[in-house]
Amino acid sequence: MRIHVINPNATTAMTEQIGRAARRAASPGTEIDLATAEGTPVSIEGYADEALCIPPMLAAIRAAEARGAQTHVLACFDDPGLDAAREVAGGPVLGICQASIQVAMTLAARFSVVTTLPRSVPIIEDLADAYGAGRRLRRVRSIDLPVLALDEEPARAFRLLCSEVRIAATQDGAELVILGCAGMAELCDRLAAETGVPVLDGVTAAVRLAEALIGMGARTSKLGSYNWPRQKLGGFTPEAA
Amino acid sequence: MRIHVINPNATTAMTEQIGRAARRAASPGTEIDLATAEGTPVSIEGYADEALCIPPMLAAIRAAEARGAQTHVLACFDDPGLDAAREVAGGPVLGICQASIQVAMTLAARFSVVTTLPRSVPIIEDLADAYGAGRRLRRVRSIDLPVLALDEEPARAFRLLCSEVRIAATQDGAELVILGCAGMAELCDRLAAETGVPVLDGVTAAVRLAEALIGMGARTSKLGSYNWPRQKLGGFTPEAA
Amino acid sequence: MRIHVINPNATTAMTEQIGRAARRAASPGTEIDLATAEGTPVSIEGYADEALCIPPMLAAIRAAEARGAQTHVLACFDDPGLDAAREVAGGPVLGICQASIQVAMTLAARFSVVTTLPRSVPIIEDLADAYGAGRRLRRVRSIDLPVLALDEEPARAFRLLCSEVRIAATQDGAELVILGCAGMAELCDRLAAETGVPVLDGVTAAVRLAEALIGMGARTSKLGSYNWPRQKLGGFTPEAA
Amino acid sequence: MRIHVINPNATTAMTEQIGRAARRAASPGTEIDLATAEGTPVSIEGYADEALCIPPMLAAIRAAEARGAQTHVLACFDDPGLDAAREVAGGPVLGICQASIQVAMTLAARFSVVTTLPRSVPIIEDLADAYGAGRRLRRVRSIDLPVLALDEEPARAFRLLCSEVRIAATQDGAELVILGCAGMAELCDRLAAETGVPVLDGVTAAVRLAEALIGMGARTSKLGSYNWPRQKLGGFTPEAA
Amino acid sequence: MRIHVINPNATTAMTEQIGRAARRAASPGTEIDLATAEGTPVSIEGYADEALCIPPMLAAIRAAEARGAQTHVLACFDDPGLDAAREVAGGPVLGICQASIQVAMTLAARFSVVTTLPRSVPIIEDLADAYGAGRRLRRVRSIDLPVLALDEEPARAFRLLCSEVRIAATQDGAELVILGCAGMAELCDRLAAETGVPVLDGVTAAVRLAEALIGMGARTSKLGSYNWPRQKLGGFTPEAA
Amino acid sequence: MRIHVINPNATTAMTEQIGRAARRAASPGTEIDLATAEGTPVSIEGYADEALCIPPMLAAIRAAEARGAQTHVLACFDDPGLDAAREVAGGPVLGICQASIQVAMTLAARFSVVTTLPRSVPIIEDLADAYGAGRRLRRVRSIDLPVLALDEEPARAFRLLCSEVRIAATQDGAELVILGCAGMAELCDRLAAETGVPVLDGVTAAVRLAEALIGMGARTSKLGSYNWPRQKLGGFTPEAA
Repeated sequence: MRIHVINPNATTAMTEQIGRAARRAASPGTEIDLATAEGTPVSIEGYADEALCIPPMLAAIRAAEARGAQTHVLACFDDPGLDAAREVAGGPVLGICQASIQVAMTLAARFSVVTTLPRSVPIIEDLADAYGAGRRLRRVRSIDLPVLALDEEPARAFRLLCSEVRIAATQDGAELVILGCAGMAELCDRLAAETGVPVLDGVTAAVRLAEALIGMGARTSKLGSYNWPRQKLGGFTPEAA
Repeated sequence: MRIHVINPNATTAMTEQIGRAARRAASPGTEIDLATAEGTPVSIEGYADEALCIPPMLAAIRAAEARGAQTHVLACFDDPGLDAAREVAGGPVLGICQASIQVAMTLAARFSVVTTLPRSVPIIEDLADAYGAGRRLRRVRSIDLPVLALDEEPARAFRLLCSEVRIAATQDGAELVILGCAGMAELCDRLAAETGVPVLDGVTAAVRLAEALIGMGARTSKLGSYNWPRQKLGGFTPEAA
Repeated sequence: MRIHVINPNATTAMTEQIGRAARRAASPGTEIDLATAEGTPVSIEGYADEALCIPPMLAAIRAAEARGAQTHVLACFDDPGLDAAREVAGGPVLGICQASIQVAMTLAARFSVVTTLPRSVPIIEDLADAYGAGRRLRRVRSIDLPVLALDEEPARAFRLLCSEVRIAATQDGAELVILGCAGMAELCDRLAAETGVPVLDGVTAAVRLAEALIGMGARTSKLGSYNWPRQKLGGFTPEAA
Repeated sequence: MRIHVINPNATTAMTEQIGRAARRAASPGTEIDLATAEGTPVSIEGYADEALCIPPMLAAIRAAEARGAQTHVLACFDDPGLDAAREVAGGPVLGICQASIQVAMTLAARFSVVTTLPRSVPIIEDLADAYGAGRRLRRVRSIDLPVLALDEEPARAFRLLCSEVRIAATQDGAELVILGCAGMAELCDRLAAETGVPVLDGVTAAVRLAEALIGMGARTSKLGSYNWPRQKLGGFTPEAA
Repeated sequence: MRIHVINPNATTAMTEQIGRAARRAASPGTEIDLATAEGTPVSIEGYADEALCIPPMLAAIRAAEARGAQTHVLACFDDPGLDAAREVAGGPVLGICQASIQVAMTLAARFSVVTTLPRSVPIIEDLADAYGAGRRLRRVRSIDLPVLALDEEPARAFRLLCSEVRIAATQDGAELVILGCAGMAELCDRLAAETGVPVLDGVTAAVRLAEALIGMGARTSKLGSYNWPRQKLGGFTPEAA
Repeated sequence: MRIHVINPNATTAMTEQIGRAARRAASPGTEIDLATAEGTPVSIEGYADEALCIPPMLAAIRAAEARGAQTHVLACFDDPGLDAAREVAGGPVLGICQASIQVAMTLAARFSVVTTLPRSVPIIEDLADAYGAGRRLRRVRSIDLPVLALDEEPARAFRLLCSEVRIAATQDGAELVILGCAGMAELCDRLAAETGVPVLDGVTAAVRLAEALIGMGARTSKLGSYNWPRQKLGGFTPEAA
């Protein structure tokens, strides 16, 4: 089984980190086909960053399918271009936000998300709503640190995350906390151990769900919304991107 | 990996059928711990049938965990007692309705469900809403056949299902159809082949998601709603059930 | 007029308390047919407790109709098995949660609920949503006391309830507070007097609504979802439970 | 017990009809204080008709409380001015739309409404949503007859209603049908008998719920939204209306 | 272009204030046809106040159309009688609440409203929901001052508004604040300057949207809900009001 | 006043058409700064087409602001990249889908949308929901023609549109129909004349709303979600795109 795990931003240190989390999460026989979207922002912090990473990511998905990838994990918690990715992919595509919310909905009746910057809070609220979290999502919280600071100031990031996870449990009544950034994946176990609160990482969740989907023979439905992009005569077409 | 798959109704022929679907769905290393809830109705067709199957099912879950089951699949599309099962289980618990809706939400933008009796339609509508399907669920349809007729009149059942799957695609704009009864599991591939519409079976979906949850080390959160049932002094307690 | 009021848990002291509240609430000509569900948990605190009380409660409903009960009040704020009860009953069935929320929606534009344990909060939130409270329900609060402590530590319970009712009014903007446990019924008037906030008890609400439904000749619709459980050949059937 | 039943439109023949339905619905000891709002449109068919009937209705409510009415039933299915009425009344106020939807939610899992003119359909859809019917309301249907035609062409009205009730049951899956106009109250039993579908009339529902509210000692909460209109110095005040 | 701007309450000082805001907001060629609804409460603070101002307002709308007004702005944040106004008007009708919420939805992903009295909070919450604000509306806040105190105690009102606007930004995460009362229109720029938070006034928003609607040739649809009130034989009709 | 109107697809014939509609819609003093996003698909038919047009469109928005544009209209009914555009723009940004839905919500209580391909139906349903249309949107319909066929087969397109507009009015109860594609803008008046149903074009709506926003001094809030994209050291940044 071959899972294409793509980091939509251009920071290869973060790709490596995501790769370690993905490989640790994967089953023995699974091959992680790790990629970085090229020419994209160094981190995804807002709608414009998202928009800029999508076209290279779509190209990467096509390339990965050409070399045998059966499924795709978009390793950014904003799930940038998830619907578009489903159009260009034959295999199932998972975003780490949707994956972690689906898993959380089977493990806890109420949960919260902790992310990096405040500007990402409404983005994640809207995604969670689209994925059907409803009342189950108590609150999206932020530690007010940029994405790259997770790597640059790990001690401070960990301290702030511990504090916010505890507040989520005591004030929100969260029974589980989702980490709202791919860059937090490797902190997951330590956070759970430190706080006593179940903590869920989206990269891990998405990799295992990707295996499950391949295992059940699932393919993206090509019957309507996620059908292949239409071929257009005499013009630029997505397939040629 | 050991997955407890329980048929909440008392019909062992149906348990066998579910077992075949579960084993076909499972990964090579996975052991299916198949069980029938004892003393329950012969089929689950309505709220009272559901209620009667839950206490034996909870006892079966405890027994299965005692003999090493790490996760549980409730093989009835009404997901009877799913929240209660999460309270008594340490491992993750999956209902086939929730599992198939989660999978459908990653493969198609709009989908429909086809079930047996009309009286199950509102039940499934309410479940799908609780699981966050929202607008993505176009419609819950029924073929107006009792559950056990799937086994007794297979040709007629198959014909009715084909017809309803096609109507779901053309009239509802469903891009995928979920089979709304555990007893339909073995018809899945033939229905997809016959109609050209992607068809999803919940037993298959739930078994693979169960593997994924175990694989990622997930456990039911015991921090709040799904905490173990409270021990009560001087009285009947769930734990003693 | 004969109203079957059933305490779904096995604590007869609580049944007596519910009976006193029901009789005080009833019209002069109304007979309260008081019952305790047998072999159930001593209190209902979570999903598994609920599940265990439902089959005996369904049997009690059938027995009560056989001896002339025209309507049924389920005296537990989780409304356990309400839909199943409607299937097995010919007369209307009221849960005290639904009843009190319906009454609150006619008396106040915004209200809160105060219940016992934190683990019941999500249960009541989900019920209130299913009953259509929407924005009108400001918040479900808990005093963090087990159900039976209401009886064992009445002074402490009353003090905690007063405090939470006041907070609901001042912080939530609740214009009325619903007591979220049948065991609080007899505290209702004192709480309202002490806090100056309108306080509503579900047993009282349900008994009077039950009279109203009988008075208007209402019966549970047997046309679809709440139709009698299906009779099944050669097997265990709900009717025989 | 004294219930003020007010017909918000100026047609006294309709008031009489509503009065008959209310008296038939009431308990033996209940006195129906029947009134017609003066200077209002002859029927309520749209938002402007509603608006014009509210000020006289508010005055009528004050007058009725002055002569001893304990509760109020607004006998128009648009529930015109229901919130305003709750401000000026001390006793509980019931609209026949809200009352019938609350009752329907206890008797059936899915129901439809049949009203007079198509222009009333969105009005009733919005009310039902505000009252929390949600998915339970399958559809609001109209027979495309003006309100007064119910009285002028009774045979035609009955025939159209029978047809629409049957369609609601077979096409919508409605398990019960609510009559969406006070002028249909007296047709309720005949419609149910003719169609075999449970049919609910709002006047009947509201009168019995009004008795229930008085019986449980309920008063409109004066703690916030429904507090008495504010007295204003040097100007026209609602109290002086 | 001629815009009818009507103050639904009887306080002409407030009409003048609204008129100044409307004229400052309008394009050079636009004529503001300013009116006060006669015989109405001196301020609109609750549902009954709203109800009493609607019939005179509907008459004023008809009169304004007769003298050439092409569109109407209802200058009260409760948008009293907005649907009824659309029935009696041929031109488009704007309420300042709906207008400001529509504008806010194009400028900010999350916003709050600050109004006068706490009793108006649920009213505005319900309006915002009907207008589709959903999650975008973070919270409706009040400064707990009556409407007329805005004029009588301007310094205190300004201080309280500044404080509440700042709290909305820091605690709610509001990216913009809407002023929830027509009487606050002239404070808008000073509040934005003082707090550094974008502040939006509904009178300004509605006047410009009214110009836009006329500019695009829009008329209220007379095809259904907003069709002219029905003419009724032999009775009081809205048209004759 | 200078409005940047951008056609996100690469078909300049369509840009010209949009330009004609925009100029006809604009006020006398308004300058339409018409642009085509370069290197994008020839039409936007699905999620991947959307994704590919966004980065060039963001660059075009920056360029337009640099040459004095005060506001932006995205002339594609999928509103591709609307949130991202708001991040990179200082002036307000309008999508033609959001603009037309906001206008429709002031003119009609219920409306439908008619678009080109079936695959765009779920996209528009999701947008309309995010913009708060709720129940007001009756249905999104398609004529099953590709975008460019509007230009290539105008007679057929017009005939299909007439038919679908009529069905929307009679079957959906739509009181107004929105044209769900920028390429339909010039057909608007003829469709309304032919069908008797009010028909709304999004380009017209957006241009006039853009003027209104500029007229009221509105700017995109830079306080949170729509703040300028973050500058990032040592890497590709959106600003440099």
